[in-house]
Amino acid sequence: MPFSFTVTYTEGQARRGVLTTPHGVVQTPCFMPVGTRGAVKGITHRDVEDVGAEIILGNTYHLHLRPGDDLIARAGGLHAFTGWHKPILTDSGGYQVFSLADRAKVTEEGVTFRSHLDGALCALSPEKATDIQSQLGSDIAMVLDQLIGAGVRDPRSAMERSARWARRARARLLQLREDPKSAPEVIVTNPGQAQFGIIQGGTDLALRTESVQATADAGFESYAIGGLSVGEPVDVMYEVVGHTAPQLPEHSPRYLMGTGMPDDLIECVARGVDMFDCVLPTRNARNGQLLTWAGVLVIKNAQYAEDRQPPDPGCGCYTCRTFSRAYLRHLFMAGEMTAATLLTVHNLYFYLDLMHRIRDAIGFGSFGKLRQEFHQTFSRR
Amino acid sequence: MPFSFTVTYTEGQARRGVLTTPHGVVQTPCFMPVGTRGAVKGITHRDVEDVGAEIILGNTYHLHLRPGDDLIARAGGLHAFTGWHKPILTDSGGYQVFSLADRAKVTEEGVTFRSHLDGALCALSPEKATDIQSQLGSDIAMVLDQLIGAGVRDPRSAMERSARWARRARARLLQLREDPKSAPEVIVTNPGQAQFGIIQGGTDLALRTESVQATADAGFESYAIGGLSVGEPVDVMYEVVGHTAPQLPEHSPRYLMGTGMPDDLIECVARGVDMFDCVLPTRNARNGQLLTWAGVLVIKNAQYAEDRQPPDPGCGCYTCRTFSRAYLRHLFMAGEMTAATLLTVHNLYFYLDLMHRIRDAIGFGSFGKLRQEFHQTFSRR
Repeated sequence: MPFSFTVTYTEGQARRGVLTTPHGVVQTPCFMPVGTRGAVKGITHRDVEDVGAEIILGNTYHLHLRPGDDLIARAGGLHAFTGWHKPILTDSGGYQVFSLADRAKVTEEGVTFRSHLDGALCALSPEKATDIQSQLGSDIAMVLDQLIGAGVRDPRSAMERSARWARRARARLLQLREDPKSAPEVIVTNPGQAQFGIIQGGTDLALRTESVQATADAGFESYAIGGLSVGEPVDVMYEVVGHTAPQLPEHSPRYLMGTGMPDDLIECVARGVDMFDCVLPTRNARNGQLLTWAGVLVIKNAQYAEDRQPPDPGCGCYTCRTFSRAYLRHLFMAGEMTAATLLTVHNLYFYLDLMHRIRDAIGFGSFGKLRQEFHQTFSRR
Repeated sequence: MPFSFTVTYTEGQARRGVLTTPHGVVQTPCFMPVGTRGAVKGITHRDVEDVGAEIILGNTYHLHLRPGDDLIARAGGLHAFTGWHKPILTDSGGYQVFSLADRAKVTEEGVTFRSHLDGALCALSPEKATDIQSQLGSDIAMVLDQLIGAGVRDPRSAMERSARWARRARARLLQLREDPKSAPEVIVTNPGQAQFGIIQGGTDLALRTESVQATADAGFESYAIGGLSVGEPVDVMYEVVGHTAPQLPEHSPRYLMGTGMPDDLIECVARGVDMFDCVLPTRNARNGQLLTWAGVLVIKNAQYAEDRQPPDPGCGCYTCRTFSRAYLRHLFMAGEMTAATLLTVHNLYFYLDLMHRIRDAIGFGSFGKLRQEFHQTFSRR
């Protein structure tokens, strides 16, 4: 199946749609669980499918370092290697280079850094990030972008370099797609892979507009909004999303990277976003935090020691159907890894169920009502 | 359902049977996965059922200390608290008192010790171990026994004290069963709970025979063989089992505690054992060891880095149906907890599938053939 996207319903800026990829169809707006190293932390693929995920995210930086994209390519790509046969999106690796790797140095050519695993000297460039993802064979690859603050402090310079890098990444992908023999060192494991450009520009709306134009010029299959959820106030994030998303091509899915809390998802759908990813539901689960229709529930709190209710009485997940808060608290306090598994199952189900309800609501023209009701019951505290 | 046991087929000393408990039926010979703190480590109840387990074991020592048998009793017992609604056997806690707790002191009355969690002073006696298990509401409770070496070095003294303790434990259970109002401090959560005595006597066959007589005098629902798999040579273990099991009441299930490797299970079934438990399949999984029809497979070994075969080509478990050795090695090397989950799923499936095949073979009169063939392919190295 070639990459395609169809908007099926709209309500205001909110869109419901169908994304088709070489490994299957994804209903949008969608949430992508993060499978950093080829596995969503804490649960099996079977559980990931069971909670309703149609697409997961893999981290290029981690997979490049271990077990290596060469090894994965020889196994036939990430789908064959991991046994996850539904769609996969991979990031470019840039974010982890700047947040995890040692001694990252950035130039116009690209980035050099040392592996956080063994100190090995590595290099990433727009072309190299494209090659690695081509070997991984994800259904959607992301371009390497220049983050603000990562060697370049000026938002304009970062945005302009990102645009130049985007053109180089696109040229490399087209070369691999049209003339793979010209790059015999790269094993293209998924010829139908799509590539997304990334909009930068920080919180400066004019820069964001320029970035949309400069990035769209390169002619990607679609576009993401990057550089948000990095510490800015949530209202500023909403403002930038509300400004940027509607400027992106109407017939392509819009991906907001790294966001966020459940109420953020609703607010950004309302501003025209179609795709999300975030470590929050999985990471918070491992730290004992459940996300529920009422808000955050910290399972270790003493008040739950003899609480026989399910974590979220309104939830239909395996954890809520089977276990009490008291039992989950016991497992968490005892350090049983099953606590992380069961909390992850719930949190992901909650996120994916929320997306499902958002899609239904857009289809029925009741998204505005869902948005209002959600804010009335959900509390961040 | 009241506790009962029926032998349906025999082949030599090997028996196939059906064990009925208040929470359901167990086909024997059976293997009981160990769910130390009310959860089999690394996998969810759903996975435990999926691999074919019909009964699990819970540890009285751990559950007594955290979350406490009082709390569990108020929740309705271990089944209601944990959400595992099939049969459960609980040990007496004695083994962990001597192996985990601090400063255990044993007298004729019982044992005092300090919790390994917080140093709290605790006491266990034949009566107290019975009370705790009565509150936990397991389907099968074990008596507290005097281990050799745990304050008493002489095998005869340990065996004789175990027999005296067994009579005290039985008297307490009958009191709780027949006159629960006489012990208002105990919440009996499973009135149909059965109680097993434990045969001691170390490696001295004459002492074992005396222990059978002394313990059976107390009139338990059934009996276990204790004090083995504690470091003695495997041939000695087989000899003691072969001597002891046939002396136990014919119409009661015979439980060999804490054994063992897959070939041990076959050899002890051949000597008349009906029930087994062991941490080996779950603990070894977390350490990266797979047990297969060919023997032990250490997943971290470099030879598996690009091995696309399933862990055990002859196995039908989720892990073997879905994943390659290369992927499992990657997850294990990366420290992903999913590696422990997937290896646990395989190892338990392997144990339970082996028991299934043993039962079928006894039914068809081909257990001798299975036993011979298993030893031809399975290697401990």
